[in-house]
Amino acid sequence: MSGQKHLLKPRRLGVDTHQELVVYMRDDCHVCRSEGFNAHSRIQVNLSERSVLATLNVIHGDWLASNEFGLSESAWHALNPRDGERADFAHAPTVDSMSAVRAKIYGNPLRDTQFDAIISDVCKGLYTDVELATFLTTCASHGLDEKEIAGLTRAMINAGEHLDWHREMIVDKHCVGGLPGNRTTPLVVAMVAAEGLVMPKTSSRAITSPAGTADTMETLAPVALSIADMQRVVEQEGGCIAWGGAMSLSPADDILIRIERAIDLDSEGQLVASVLSKKAAAGATHVVIDLPVGPTAKVRSETDARRLAALLCDTGEAIGLAVRAVITDGLQPVGRGIGPALEARDVLAVLQNKNGAPADLRARSIHLAGAIFELSGLAAEGAGTVLAETSLSSGRAWRKFQAICEAQGGMRTPPLATQTQPVPAPREGIVTAIDNRVLARIAKLSGAPAAPASGLDLHVRLGDRVERGQPLFTLHTETTGELAYALEYLDTHANVIRIAGEPEGDSPSQ
Amino acid sequence: MSGQKHLLKPRRLGVDTHQELVVYMRDDCHVCRSEGFNAHSRIQVNLSERSVLATLNVIHGDWLASNEFGLSESAWHALNPRDGERADFAHAPTVDSMSAVRAKIYGNPLRDTQFDAIISDVCKGLYTDVELATFLTTCASHGLDEKEIAGLTRAMINAGEHLDWHREMIVDKHCVGGLPGNRTTPLVVAMVAAEGLVMPKTSSRAITSPAGTADTMETLAPVALSIADMQRVVEQEGGCIAWGGAMSLSPADDILIRIERAIDLDSEGQLVASVLSKKAAAGATHVVIDLPVGPTAKVRSETDARRLAALLCDTGEAIGLAVRAVITDGLQPVGRGIGPALEARDVLAVLQNKNGAPADLRARSIHLAGAIFELSGLAAEGAGTVLAETSLSSGRAWRKFQAICEAQGGMRTPPLATQTQPVPAPREGIVTAIDNRVLARIAKLSGAPAAPASGLDLHVRLGDRVERGQPLFTLHTETTGELAYALEYLDTHANVIRIAGEPEGDSPSQ
Repeated sequence: MSGQKHLLKPRRLGVDTHQELVVYMRDDCHVCRSEGFNAHSRIQVNLSERSVLATLNVIHGDWLASNEFGLSESAWHALNPRDGERADFAHAPTVDSMSAVRAKIYGNPLRDTQFDAIISDVCKGLYTDVELATFLTTCASHGLDEKEIAGLTRAMINAGEHLDWHREMIVDKHCVGGLPGNRTTPLVVAMVAAEGLVMPKTSSRAITSPAGTADTMETLAPVALSIADMQRVVEQEGGCIAWGGAMSLSPADDILIRIERAIDLDSEGQLVASVLSKKAAAGATHVVIDLPVGPTAKVRSETDARRLAALLCDTGEAIGLAVRAVITDGLQPVGRGIGPALEARDVLAVLQNKNGAPADLRARSIHLAGAIFELSGLAAEGAGTVLAETSLSSGRAWRKFQAICEAQGGMRTPPLATQTQPVPAPREGIVTAIDNRVLARIAKLSGAPAAPASGLDLHVRLGDRVERGQPLFTLHTETTGELAYALEYLDTHANVIRIAGEPEGDSPSQ
Repeated sequence: MSGQKHLLKPRRLGVDTHQELVVYMRDDCHVCRSEGFNAHSRIQVNLSERSVLATLNVIHGDWLASNEFGLSESAWHALNPRDGERADFAHAPTVDSMSAVRAKIYGNPLRDTQFDAIISDVCKGLYTDVELATFLTTCASHGLDEKEIAGLTRAMINAGEHLDWHREMIVDKHCVGGLPGNRTTPLVVAMVAAEGLVMPKTSSRAITSPAGTADTMETLAPVALSIADMQRVVEQEGGCIAWGGAMSLSPADDILIRIERAIDLDSEGQLVASVLSKKAAAGATHVVIDLPVGPTAKVRSETDARRLAALLCDTGEAIGLAVRAVITDGLQPVGRGIGPALEARDVLAVLQNKNGAPADLRARSIHLAGAIFELSGLAAEGAGTVLAETSLSSGRAWRKFQAICEAQGGMRTPPLATQTQPVPAPREGIVTAIDNRVLARIAKLSGAPAAPASGLDLHVRLGDRVERGQPLFTLHTETTGELAYALEYLDTHANVIRIAGEPEGDSPSQ
């Protein structure tokens, strides 16, 4: 920016600021003074041909020298300084695309070119967390129309890498979350690949739930695969279950999801763009989408589900994807475990055809795999579930799953939590309602998904008769702090599981 | 939270993170481990009876001991640790009021009790910057209806201190910004107090402009007055010009303004609540509000101005304030200087009846003081401006202003910038338009308001004839980096001042 460059020596400070890039300078350092930098200034750091934007923290004191600057772990990894390199600095450039975001706040729809500019700037790291929250919130508040959703989806696809499998048909599936324990993906991939279709599955980590498919699968095998690794696994086995974020497929999605998680926000347009951009970038041609519906699932009503299904199919058509949406029962959690390792245990029980394996998890997986068999043409309409059932009961799916895990780097045994605590029924009666959201929140407070063994194990289902004192579910935690925290929350949300015979006037907590 | 408390010793690290509270712990520290804290965890720090919420940064390395925790400057000042004190820690509590914010995103209006809860949590520091951005953005996107604006205003008043002047009538004024250099407040206070009314003025710092009244006044006298100081000054002189933020009047406003500034957002409902909550909390009974209108002012059209005027008067009525809105010309900047010290120089010229003092600044101040004289009943309708004119030309206002500055801690001489750079006219012709926004942006890039001497001096007004090469304005800066940055921006916004004779097809930049 200015004619003469002021150079500083990089120093790794070992400060983990999560994904935020932070650099540190002395208040009396000549760069701070000549450039007019202040605490929280957004600045551009240039090191040879590399460049990042970071937030400045100003140091008073002498533990940093005035001819050096400090880097957070995130900034260190982003810049990757080599021996002897020196950095120069400038004010961060104005983020012009934020004017489009402000126009959206005032009610103007966003055009395709504006989405391209916004998503490109987001991927370059030009947006602060506060600006990302502004973008997401105004899109959720005004909503996005069909044209905007297609524009956002295309922008998110274009901003990342694209996988090309050199095949005519690549199948995929996705579940629009909100239903704890609904871990069908590993089962569906195993069935579909076992029967000869190609399904290179990329999954997200949890957004607002206690576990995403990537979190669960990671307790069974490595999931942070490079594109080359993924291609090798798929070439060999016809399927894989990888974490999409490690591959820079729709990288904007991972940045946006972090902020959506922080504000606990899921919006329809963002959801469609997130799902379909990942599928398209991953090279899918035929996609089945599971939409669980229930008063405490993400999709609350049949009407909402139909609208979302239409939006997914229409946006799919706009970007050249064959999409089938399957509306399913979302009244209660699926399987028993809620949390990465506990859900992995349920998946293994179904694959191994164990006695007592969760029947609902098995049935849903068969339903979805059947829809893929039909959409792909491998089975006639109506004959898909028979093929899926056979794949499971014959053991073909289980053998395929083990082979996939081995190919991804070796099968793992899901961890067990160090502490468990049963939560007893406060009275006898019939289970009449289960609040998915409160249950998910309890699993999160127990430490899931960050601590993979944490979460909870559900022992009852709708319609079950329970005795007073009989365990309704068991908390699994790794720390005493988290256990106390989950129990404290439970104190104020005791009707997470409703048992007939409760006094009138109670309403399910939201 | 957990039964046994884990204590750590506080250590001041000298890291200036601006207003964000940050604490630092070693990754192998027993608190991190037992509580399950991660980088960017929101945690509660308890020290004797004091408690704050902060964001955690995790340290890898041994420059922090594992039995101590580090504090940013902001966290250190918020907690103010005493010798020998030890802190304990817990997960930050769930911010329940965020569920009302999410409901607003999905289109539900906010009720009074929800505003009370949100604003109370904001003042307690429970909201992260990302959550504050979410609240502001959804309110701006959906807009707030009249009931919501009154609810937000009352919540903001209730969350802070209230001043009581033990008088029947307290007058006040406010300008709904957007017009660079429109620094009438010091002049109006001087006139009004000189004529015997009581006007204890509390002003904000700049939100998105190059200077707020508090920034400008600070170059003339101390403005960070305590309530006791302010009461003494007002008792003695009948008026003051203080920074409202130092007094915890509507403290939520200062927190929200920081985020509005970061995303460059001004929304109508927030604006009304911000203005009126500050006035009511400061004890005002009669308030005149200046609404400059112009295509590049904050209020773009007469229609918008009338709507905003009605909203201000109606909300005033709902909370018991007499409000008069004065719609004024906002086509071009007022006076010559744009930036704290340069505007202060213009104010002094008017007060001192200097030859060449900016006539427009003088006329506007007289107009507003006249409106106050009429609203208060001190002058008959139509006779207010005569009284105001006399107050200025007689020197009464100038003597009062000096007395107020002395009472606030001593009059200061506004600083001069170390570097100036004239910007010449690219051609001869008539000045036909001045873009207030671009001009304000140039003044900000020059360093205003953080560097009080920075900004720009405007040498032309609408209708002026200029020769090619004649200076249109002069940049004032403190650093070479800022000068270069302002010039670079100017390169791409050369038509900030339009001169007749420009080729057709140019449109004013937004």
